[in-house]
Amino acid sequence: MRLTRYFLPVLKETPSEAQIVSHRLMLRAGMIKQAAAGIYSWLPLGYKVLRNIERIVHEEQIRAGHIPMLMPTLQSAELWRESGRYDDYGEEMLRITDRHGRDMLYGPTNEELITDIFRSHVGSYRDLPLTLYQIQWKFRDEIRPRFGVMRGREFLMKDGYNFDLTKDDALHAYNRHMVSYLRTYERMGLRAIPMRADSGPIGGENTHEFLVLAETGESEVFYDAAILNLTLGERSVDYDSREECSEIVREWTSPYARTDETHDAALFERIPEARRRQSRAIEVGQIFYFGTKYSEPMGAVVQGPDGQQVPVHMGSHGIGVSRLLGAIIEASHDDNGIIWPEGVTPFHCGIINLRQGDAEADAACERIYAALVAAGLDPLYDDRDERAGGKFATMDLIGLPWRITVGPRGLKNGVVELTSRRSGESEELSPEEAVRRVVEIYARPGEQAGR
Amino acid sequence: MRLTRYFLPVLKETPSEAQIVSHRLMLRAGMIKQAAAGIYSWLPLGYKVLRNIERIVHEEQIRAGHIPMLMPTLQSAELWRESGRYDDYGEEMLRITDRHGRDMLYGPTNEELITDIFRSHVGSYRDLPLTLYQIQWKFRDEIRPRFGVMRGREFLMKDGYNFDLTKDDALHAYNRHMVSYLRTYERMGLRAIPMRADSGPIGGENTHEFLVLAETGESEVFYDAAILNLTLGERSVDYDSREECSEIVREWTSPYARTDETHDAALFERIPEARRRQSRAIEVGQIFYFGTKYSEPMGAVVQGPDGQQVPVHMGSHGIGVSRLLGAIIEASHDDNGIIWPEGVTPFHCGIINLRQGDAEADAACERIYAALVAAGLDPLYDDRDERAGGKFATMDLIGLPWRITVGPRGLKNGVVELTSRRSGESEELSPEEAVRRVVEIYARPGEQAGR
Repeated sequence: MRLTRYFLPVLKETPSEAQIVSHRLMLRAGMIKQAAAGIYSWLPLGYKVLRNIERIVHEEQIRAGHIPMLMPTLQSAELWRESGRYDDYGEEMLRITDRHGRDMLYGPTNEELITDIFRSHVGSYRDLPLTLYQIQWKFRDEIRPRFGVMRGREFLMKDGYNFDLTKDDALHAYNRHMVSYLRTYERMGLRAIPMRADSGPIGGENTHEFLVLAETGESEVFYDAAILNLTLGERSVDYDSREECSEIVREWTSPYARTDETHDAALFERIPEARRRQSRAIEVGQIFYFGTKYSEPMGAVVQGPDGQQVPVHMGSHGIGVSRLLGAIIEASHDDNGIIWPEGVTPFHCGIINLRQGDAEADAACERIYAALVAAGLDPLYDDRDERAGGKFATMDLIGLPWRITVGPRGLKNGVVELTSRRSGESEELSPEEAVRRVVEIYARPGEQAGR
Repeated sequence: MRLTRYFLPVLKETPSEAQIVSHRLMLRAGMIKQAAAGIYSWLPLGYKVLRNIERIVHEEQIRAGHIPMLMPTLQSAELWRESGRYDDYGEEMLRITDRHGRDMLYGPTNEELITDIFRSHVGSYRDLPLTLYQIQWKFRDEIRPRFGVMRGREFLMKDGYNFDLTKDDALHAYNRHMVSYLRTYERMGLRAIPMRADSGPIGGENTHEFLVLAETGESEVFYDAAILNLTLGERSVDYDSREECSEIVREWTSPYARTDETHDAALFERIPEARRRQSRAIEVGQIFYFGTKYSEPMGAVVQGPDGQQVPVHMGSHGIGVSRLLGAIIEASHDDNGIIWPEGVTPFHCGIINLRQGDAEADAACERIYAALVAAGLDPLYDDRDERAGGKFATMDLIGLPWRITVGPRGLKNGVVELTSRRSGESEELSPEEAVRRVVEIYARPGEQAGR
């Protein structure tokens, strides 16, 4: 993309309404614009990152054998009366009356609707196991929406639901979700720690939250620093193998890691003092096993191998897709702006032309641009007639991980500059070598997500 | 995908509530399930086609230089009061009150919101031309939702908005949209005819609807059969060229083609009688140029080259994304089920194992499956332990354009059967040759969309 043809309305001033850094940077970088309290439009740059995050979530869910589908945003109140949650849910549920006076609501979650789909179509244990998921907009009418997309009212969420014959099968689904979530966050450049959590209004006995450490987080967490050394990396996982999945879960849940809701001071004290950590953190996902809580009242039963009708064992599993943009920025920025991990960056590489209108500089930029595009990458070429300082400031603010700077002086020596946004380090290279290096960076396994 | 691991709840009986063939087939093929009147869940198969259609729309919009973004589903009523449409829109607008008693609505369209984004961020003619678009869920509270996804209440729509300095520039944007829409529909295997239309509540002087001929269409249309011979094919288009775009528009709008709202019997009579056609048709898109209708009242102005503040010229342009599934099926089916065009098919090729459990047949199917996946295709392997008749019926119903049938008898002679869903014709080929043929079909330009 050429910047002169793009819509990137960066702000010079720091917006006063934003209290946390991710909200400020998303507004300043022209990623979002508030449409109403807690409701945002996703401007082109923000939309690109949102789509990248969405794609990683899809890829990892599909890899785990889960099946994508889509439920509507609006639902009839009837199903929620059947489960008993219509009255329980409280004021966060946005209740709507249609022109015929029927009670409806904007789905804050979808256990009822998916259970209805299941019971309408599945009748035998032979159709199990089954995990369906979607990425869809949700609405929760927060009394005080704040922190930009971190606690908005309309938000994009991945929600998945497993249906299994036995508790054991459902616990395998639970483990499969934990592993797929760990991979998902890793690909986004995030370290998200699974922590034993409270089940809240969804109910259920087993539940973990995934938390990203950040000063501005709303949760207080306690953990053993040993967990920071764990990584899945390129480990291949057979999601059908109960042993493999449960071994990874064991590995990640053995070190102490809890939110203040489940914190156990006595257990925490047993960790060697040097590894005890207390921090703020942002919740970016949660998994639940809740057994037959919905299947029993809603009659989601299958015929088992012995011919008996049994309610299925279920779990639900969520990732806060739109919230992740905020969490990633909270975890990855500096005074000059955002620093995108390669996996989610909106453009793979920036190109800065230091002397727009200079024939040689223009031609070199065009060649670099074309070479990156030919390699399947998506560069952002700042082709505006602007001073270098302004171009650098914009590029730093929007946080592309790599930048190629092209100017007449360097070109005289046959070189351009390749700069890492994260380290700030620059290298002088031939234009061809700079392109080759950028292509190589994104060819690394696990870093192709931005494509 | 292996069918035993998928969720494809096909129905044996024809659902009684469905009045038209696309609605019946979408229910029977397990593509959708009604969640409330005019509101549907997209089951996995339906969701796949929806995503394919979405991707084609994105690709063609980006090719035309239009920039993707995303607006929220819920909006504040304030902006609609500013434009005067809050009171005008009537009961089809779903009005909502949040917990603080603020008036909100579920966007039926987004002229107000996009104009607000524009006026907040753009101040100079140098930032023009600009076309922003989104694919987002909309809601219209139809009094009698019917025909499945063809006239639902919650529906997925692409809506795009152009902002230009002059009427001439805006008319180029109008033409660009017409050309990009023609390409979009062609890639989906649809013949959509642009017809001069009425502007309705959006307003404006220039507007065309795109209509797909189908007996069950809600529109009555009159046209010159000569228009059926037009095709863009592989023609490359420079969207920046006013001449190229307006030439294509001239070509497509010269033959008489109008809906009953704009029909002119006298003009129609001038067409040679043998080419006069009257038919039913389904509207699948509409483009508008409406000048300064929104920019003037809402103050969307830019500084022109002469320093004067002028309101921008705008247009809006829509494609009914979810409705397109219905339209494609109306235009492409037979008594046995759906016939997907290659561009949108949910799976590229079906594989039927005539004797599940037979070692040779199983192994051959696995090899074919693996070869198609390795070629980047997405096959559906019916690996159920079912009679051949049931497998054929399911495969015909869900409409994959190509099917490879594998059985012990054929394998003895070294052959499998490759069958076209559209023509019904079969050929006996070696497994390798069958795979090669399928890969070749999807490698044709313009037919890679399903990938």
